[in-house]
Amino acid sequence: MKKISMDDMVGYCNQYGFIFQGSEIYDGLANTWDYGPLGTRLKNNIKDAWRYYFIQRRNNSFEVDADILMNPTVWKASGHLDSFSDPLMDCKECKTRFRVDNLLDELDSEIHADGMSMEEMSAYVKEHNIKCPKCGASNFTDVRQFNLMFATQRGVTDTTTNTIYLRPENAQGEYVNFLNVQRTMRAKLPFGIGQIGKAFRNEITPGNFTFRTIEFEQMEYQTFCKHGTDEEIYDEFKEYGMNFFKMLGLPGEKLRFHDHEKLAHYAKAACDIEYAFPFGWGEINGTHNRTDFDLTRHSEFSNRKLEYFDNTTNEKFIPYIIESTYGVDRVVLAVLFESLAEEELEGGDVRTVLRISPKLAPIKLNVLPVVKKRHGEKAMEIYNLCKRHFMTTYDETGSIGKRYRRGDAIGTPYAISIDDETIEDGTVTLRDRDTMSQRKVSVDELIAFILENTSFIE
Amino acid sequence: MKKISMDDMVGYCNQYGFIFQGSEIYDGLANTWDYGPLGTRLKNNIKDAWRYYFIQRRNNSFEVDADILMNPTVWKASGHLDSFSDPLMDCKECKTRFRVDNLLDELDSEIHADGMSMEEMSAYVKEHNIKCPKCGASNFTDVRQFNLMFATQRGVTDTTTNTIYLRPENAQGEYVNFLNVQRTMRAKLPFGIGQIGKAFRNEITPGNFTFRTIEFEQMEYQTFCKHGTDEEIYDEFKEYGMNFFKMLGLPGEKLRFHDHEKLAHYAKAACDIEYAFPFGWGEINGTHNRTDFDLTRHSEFSNRKLEYFDNTTNEKFIPYIIESTYGVDRVVLAVLFESLAEEELEGGDVRTVLRISPKLAPIKLNVLPVVKKRHGEKAMEIYNLCKRHFMTTYDETGSIGKRYRRGDAIGTPYAISIDDETIEDGTVTLRDRDTMSQRKVSVDELIAFILENTSFIE
Repeated sequence: MKKISMDDMVGYCNQYGFIFQGSEIYDGLANTWDYGPLGTRLKNNIKDAWRYYFIQRRNNSFEVDADILMNPTVWKASGHLDSFSDPLMDCKECKTRFRVDNLLDELDSEIHADGMSMEEMSAYVKEHNIKCPKCGASNFTDVRQFNLMFATQRGVTDTTTNTIYLRPENAQGEYVNFLNVQRTMRAKLPFGIGQIGKAFRNEITPGNFTFRTIEFEQMEYQTFCKHGTDEEIYDEFKEYGMNFFKMLGLPGEKLRFHDHEKLAHYAKAACDIEYAFPFGWGEINGTHNRTDFDLTRHSEFSNRKLEYFDNTTNEKFIPYIIESTYGVDRVVLAVLFESLAEEELEGGDVRTVLRISPKLAPIKLNVLPVVKKRHGEKAMEIYNLCKRHFMTTYDETGSIGKRYRRGDAIGTPYAISIDDETIEDGTVTLRDRDTMSQRKVSVDELIAFILENTSFIE
Repeated sequence: MKKISMDDMVGYCNQYGFIFQGSEIYDGLANTWDYGPLGTRLKNNIKDAWRYYFIQRRNNSFEVDADILMNPTVWKASGHLDSFSDPLMDCKECKTRFRVDNLLDELDSEIHADGMSMEEMSAYVKEHNIKCPKCGASNFTDVRQFNLMFATQRGVTDTTTNTIYLRPENAQGEYVNFLNVQRTMRAKLPFGIGQIGKAFRNEITPGNFTFRTIEFEQMEYQTFCKHGTDEEIYDEFKEYGMNFFKMLGLPGEKLRFHDHEKLAHYAKAACDIEYAFPFGWGEINGTHNRTDFDLTRHSEFSNRKLEYFDNTTNEKFIPYIIESTYGVDRVVLAVLFESLAEEELEGGDVRTVLRISPKLAPIKLNVLPVVKKRHGEKAMEIYNLCKRHFMTTYDETGSIGKRYRRGDAIGTPYAISIDDETIEDGTVTLRDRDTMSQRKVSVDELIAFILENTSFIE
């Protein structure tokens, strides 16, 4: 079986309508991507799966939808205004810009540049006479910090403007609503607040297709808990994340935990789940024990006490937070890599097949009249019935084999062919994408079978 | 029955967890709002309804999910860079800023200021010695145009930056992907491209709660069609929109068409559907015949021909577009106003009840043990079973009557009480939110009944 490269994947997504370059007719906007009809449906199915497993099925679990634009003091409190930045310098000769920590680490992985201050990096560059990898000169600007948040102006002129930011992470939307959710849901610890939404980072070294982009979607879940219960909940969410991925069809041997040794200033523990992409292991989930850092900071900056009153012990305290966060675009990409195959069939034919879980498949059923003129009307009638229940396509052009292949290539798990027997006795031939086996079923059986096999409900 | 005012609604949404002020703990960010757990669920249900009726159920209908950040030439081509602006002037004495067209129209509705140029407005203000409504002085700055798009910088320094914009409407994401969708879906005219997503406008006169905000969500549907078929499709979507709203539970007498006499530069015809809000009739949908303006402009600015080849007539042409657009936040608000009631009951009691369609209700079922100690375990077992199928809450605190009221207030259509009989024979007492009638059912019957009554499938 052929190994699918990143180039293969970009081409596949463009050819079949999963993902297109953003603003493609204008030669794009670097590192933005638009989801086409099949990619949108796949992404929606993954979001629905998250909603089902993280919100609907869990007790004391609440979803919010906070605005992307927030009061700028939020980013002061969270630390993003002061420290969410990359160290950059320019080659004065060829004008190329570099991320200094990455550059130094590439030259010598023993340096650990990400622990150095700007001054230390500048000094190191001069002392070691570092050369520009592009033009060879040793003539750099000083190192400067560049904040990764996109800034914009609220209001109409300089005198009244306020600089506001596109959120670089969703989490703060959950944190600033902690009291609102606790109050209105009468929630007791531990409880969770989840959110799905867009975040934005002005990255200068994005790449690997949709893996790192300037605009991306997150599914986040924050568990508010009492200090002392945090470590157990942290461990629980590491496992919960692993199980969530397995439910989406990612196999255990392609997933691994990666515990962080170096921790962010707010974290007591952090662990990624990584998937084996063609370019190496890549983070698709993070579990973080953020302690009481965030609610403490917001309490300081907002003059509202983000506390919880435990009426069983009469204690008041600031809860700890365990964060479980998923990059939606990365999960989509992992599912696509896991599912896409070029398969050699008996007889030497090759088929492109997306062996995606039927629960996530963009289209559940493909309806095919064997002979358009004779069976088209009956097929259309069945199509109109089925699409009331699930995403269904109708295809009447080309040989039946070619039409099966089209459905296989986009991961449609089931196809039915409509022939003379359908007109006589109402049965259709149901074909399975993976086994390519066929069997006769009635239309009623068909609908029940597909609903059962595409539902998240066990 | 008490009339619900806008203030009542803002208070209700905050009290019950539908909608909170954005960044509330920091005293907000003007005209941003965060959806709480119930508001998020209601909004998601409305989006799911749209997906069902506009994408899944329609033939030749495709959803995309384009990035908010687009190549800036998109906004040159669309006309937004040049003309998506408001005319503003400041009182030099008290420094208050005014939208000049609104100010002149308020002074004299015969002026029709929105047809005047900036110079004409400036001249009118001087000639008529217009006074500042706030301080009474006649000392204004000149009139300037203020673009309503939020701008930000992509890249890291002045030499390499590019100004990009937060999209002020979703539509361009569908238009620039016209060729991609047509090609990959092998689509024939007429076909539709829909999208749900956020858009942003730097409005200086927003207001009326979530009716006009700087960040909002749209559900848009663009039908690409051949010139000559456009008027029929335009009429079809006016009706389709009206029926969509009725399906959501908005009654005909609170809805009206409002045909535009003055048309945008790109439009051949435009019509709103308005809902009777407490502040007056407000637009919740727009149908627009945008002709071939958008695809022609993008063809000019991108050097890609956004044409369609009709292989039945061997013609190549730029399609017409019929746009059908919905403000998600406005539809949520209309549904809330339509549903919320303060009802006087027999005996003089008053209950708050959200008479929302069960299809849209945030929570479908409320599970109540009559006596916590005796029936709690059985109730929890039934709760755990039901929440696999639909959003369910469990409530064990307070009298049964009080618990019914809590569910009524947030629109939960069904409640069950668990008592000794449940433990004996498995039956529960099912209570209806609207009629308050009760009847005995088995748990299996209950699940089937609720699934049937909350599904969009007819």
